[in-house]
Amino acid sequence: MDKVYQYIEENKDMYIKWLQELCRQPSVAAQNRGMKETADMVQKMISEHTHAKVELLETSGYPVVYGEINTGKEKTLSFYNHYDVQPEDPLDLWNSDPFGAEIRDGKIYARGVADNKGNLVARLAAVHAYLNVYGEMPINVKFIFEGEEEIGSVHLDEFKEKYPEKLKADGCIWEFGYKNPDGRLQVSLGVKGMQYVELRCKGANIDLHSANAAVIENPAWRLVWALQTLKNDKEEILIEGFYDRVLKPDEAELELLEEMIYEEEATLKRLDLDNFLLNLTGVPLKEKLIFQPTCTICGIESGYTGEGAKTVLPSEARVKLDFRLVPNQDPAEISKLLRNHLDKHGFEDIEIITFTGEHPAKTDIHDPLVQTVLQNVEKVYGRPPTINRMSPGTGPMYILCQELGIPAVSLGVGNDSSQNHAPNENIKVEDYIQGIKMMATIVHEFAHTGKD
Amino acid sequence: MDKVYQYIEENKDMYIKWLQELCRQPSVAAQNRGMKETADMVQKMISEHTHAKVELLETSGYPVVYGEINTGKEKTLSFYNHYDVQPEDPLDLWNSDPFGAEIRDGKIYARGVADNKGNLVARLAAVHAYLNVYGEMPINVKFIFEGEEEIGSVHLDEFKEKYPEKLKADGCIWEFGYKNPDGRLQVSLGVKGMQYVELRCKGANIDLHSANAAVIENPAWRLVWALQTLKNDKEEILIEGFYDRVLKPDEAELELLEEMIYEEEATLKRLDLDNFLLNLTGVPLKEKLIFQPTCTICGIESGYTGEGAKTVLPSEARVKLDFRLVPNQDPAEISKLLRNHLDKHGFEDIEIITFTGEHPAKTDIHDPLVQTVLQNVEKVYGRPPTINRMSPGTGPMYILCQELGIPAVSLGVGNDSSQNHAPNENIKVEDYIQGIKMMATIVHEFAHTGKD
Repeated sequence: MDKVYQYIEENKDMYIKWLQELCRQPSVAAQNRGMKETADMVQKMISEHTHAKVELLETSGYPVVYGEINTGKEKTLSFYNHYDVQPEDPLDLWNSDPFGAEIRDGKIYARGVADNKGNLVARLAAVHAYLNVYGEMPINVKFIFEGEEEIGSVHLDEFKEKYPEKLKADGCIWEFGYKNPDGRLQVSLGVKGMQYVELRCKGANIDLHSANAAVIENPAWRLVWALQTLKNDKEEILIEGFYDRVLKPDEAELELLEEMIYEEEATLKRLDLDNFLLNLTGVPLKEKLIFQPTCTICGIESGYTGEGAKTVLPSEARVKLDFRLVPNQDPAEISKLLRNHLDKHGFEDIEIITFTGEHPAKTDIHDPLVQTVLQNVEKVYGRPPTINRMSPGTGPMYILCQELGIPAVSLGVGNDSSQNHAPNENIKVEDYIQGIKMMATIVHEFAHTGKD
Repeated sequence: MDKVYQYIEENKDMYIKWLQELCRQPSVAAQNRGMKETADMVQKMISEHTHAKVELLETSGYPVVYGEINTGKEKTLSFYNHYDVQPEDPLDLWNSDPFGAEIRDGKIYARGVADNKGNLVARLAAVHAYLNVYGEMPINVKFIFEGEEEIGSVHLDEFKEKYPEKLKADGCIWEFGYKNPDGRLQVSLGVKGMQYVELRCKGANIDLHSANAAVIENPAWRLVWALQTLKNDKEEILIEGFYDRVLKPDEAELELLEEMIYEEEATLKRLDLDNFLLNLTGVPLKEKLIFQPTCTICGIESGYTGEGAKTVLPSEARVKLDFRLVPNQDPAEISKLLRNHLDKHGFEDIEIITFTGEHPAKTDIHDPLVQTVLQNVEKVYGRPPTINRMSPGTGPMYILCQELGIPAVSLGVGNDSSQNHAPNENIKVEDYIQGIKMMATIVHEFAHTGKD
């Protein structure tokens, strides 16, 4: 592999340019901005750089860019990534153009550079380097690059039904991954699920002078009262039945938590906070992060929110809620429980709009692909990885992998302050180059796994 | 007075043009839009149309446009109005330009036409007509037109201290007034007070990926929990001491409620509502509207509020609250009670920004100016007025009048669907012309009050 590493070093400026080019193309799925252009660009990149056979596989939403390198070899490894990004607002908190991909102090700043374009391009670059050194791949490779991850992978079910053979693989390298604050690589073996909803409460059919508030219902107050029945200040989610399916971590998983690095002091300092929720620390803090579901207000809006004092009685109030789920919670069931809860508490009038639902997923730690990855991290990074039993984040791992019996392992080029979904999203150039080397290493080693 | 009425009829197109001209000049105090231009325009209008001596009296805020007609007569009547308006958003709900002053189906539509430019110009027009018919005024007249009513009359204290002699009068015609749904004129004899505040709750110093919500505090949740300690769903305000100074209505006032017109069915239909707050109806409904204080969410905002699903953990949450106060509540004290309440409930970190404070005020119903107005309404409107003991709205009546022993009476050109502070604000052209006649009548009759 030394030749591949050397090739990557010699061509790193080119690989950085590939990434910048993709980051400069906006692809905000939630706002339908630049999606077609990005899909075309990604198709072209796969084709030019890896000579894979590429197709845009249509669904009712944005297409999946699908690439395949058929070597006739025994094993198949798939790479799952996404080419869409989160909206870039609030714009005023960015220190450079979110779609400028500016490099400052060894970091590339762009919306989507960590989530998920850095990983997507690193994997293409790894295959490119491998091909240029060895002339051919030691395994079959599949690229499954979707365009709706940030809006809940809403059409992957349809994709799966339409193109079942495209998903078949002996293992899948999942889309994301980060370094710990101490610089060690983190390998993740699962994801939380999610149910994302919006609640809408309506009052009068028009905003009124707030003097009317003495006798006319205020939907903002009703929404506040409804919300406070959902979760109390001990962080207990009060929806009846919400915790019924939650699996507690087993002993081996609790042991992993002991080893798991979560730099409390540094995190608090970076975020300018005095303490974590409920003053948690140590293993209980990590257990909550990894193994417990959440109910989060992602956004709330009603009435006048501009400068100064406007005396208005709002006609509508809206809140966006995200529930992160753990095995074996079921997203569709959560929506039903929420509806029942609101009805039971006198909020039959509050409308629920369901945006996305995703099941949680976990890969068996003893799986050969998992072991291949874990055993080879040190070659590239000089230190063994830490294991994250399940990511606090979410993705369609259940439908793409777990349901089909495909092991999924997640590792990538982010760091602990990459600020995914937030202003000044970034990755380190060095992590990006190491990520390319690591992917090439996995391809190489996975070919031989289970052979000696 | 018939000659005056006839003069007004003959010149009504001109008076409508004066009003349109003023409405077409934006004057949004909260956003500092067009304030200087409007003050200049109002100064010019007073001077040209009434020959009063006019000055722009400076304060630390927007100037008071002050006009004085000195006849050497015994009595002085002042007119209090304001030339500023509320912000016009949400723009998409207007059916015509908020600053277009378009006339459709006998109504003039414009931001500020009801609140308060229609009344301001009607009073100038009344003096203009009176002068043109009689050649001189039967009393001294003062115009006190401020520019900060919609942001809480924040510098009237300063104005009062700087120019105490400008406020002296035997009576004051207050700025607003409406017709009941049945077409009868409503005369108001007081205003609620107000304390307007913004609460700000901060979490991490930056918006985060919502996966972090398992362990990082969410300021939107904290704000929800804080708010629900302020008022429960029985509309009881839970701030300790909030009701201590509230005076209950006396028997005469309760009797006025019996006569007071509040068209429940029509209001519910117009607002597309099934019922009023707490299913109130009849006298208890009117008692709540007139004699009870409020705590209103005028606006709330946190996190992502755009289209689609953004999984963000917000770094800040803000809410705007307006407390309408009744005699003898004190706005400054309300802020202190609120601070104590939040501290006591564990919300020491929530910041309170105080925008405005105004005392409630009530005029003695037996006062001669009040009686003059009440007895002469029928001359213009053909029917006697109804009495609103105290308006659910707010204004600086306490500092401009009550504290100085000046009786204040409020009547004007609005109607029950004028939509003050809301989209499609409007008045009827007919009400505007009647309002001009009524003001001329008051000037005429007040000169003789107490003389026979």
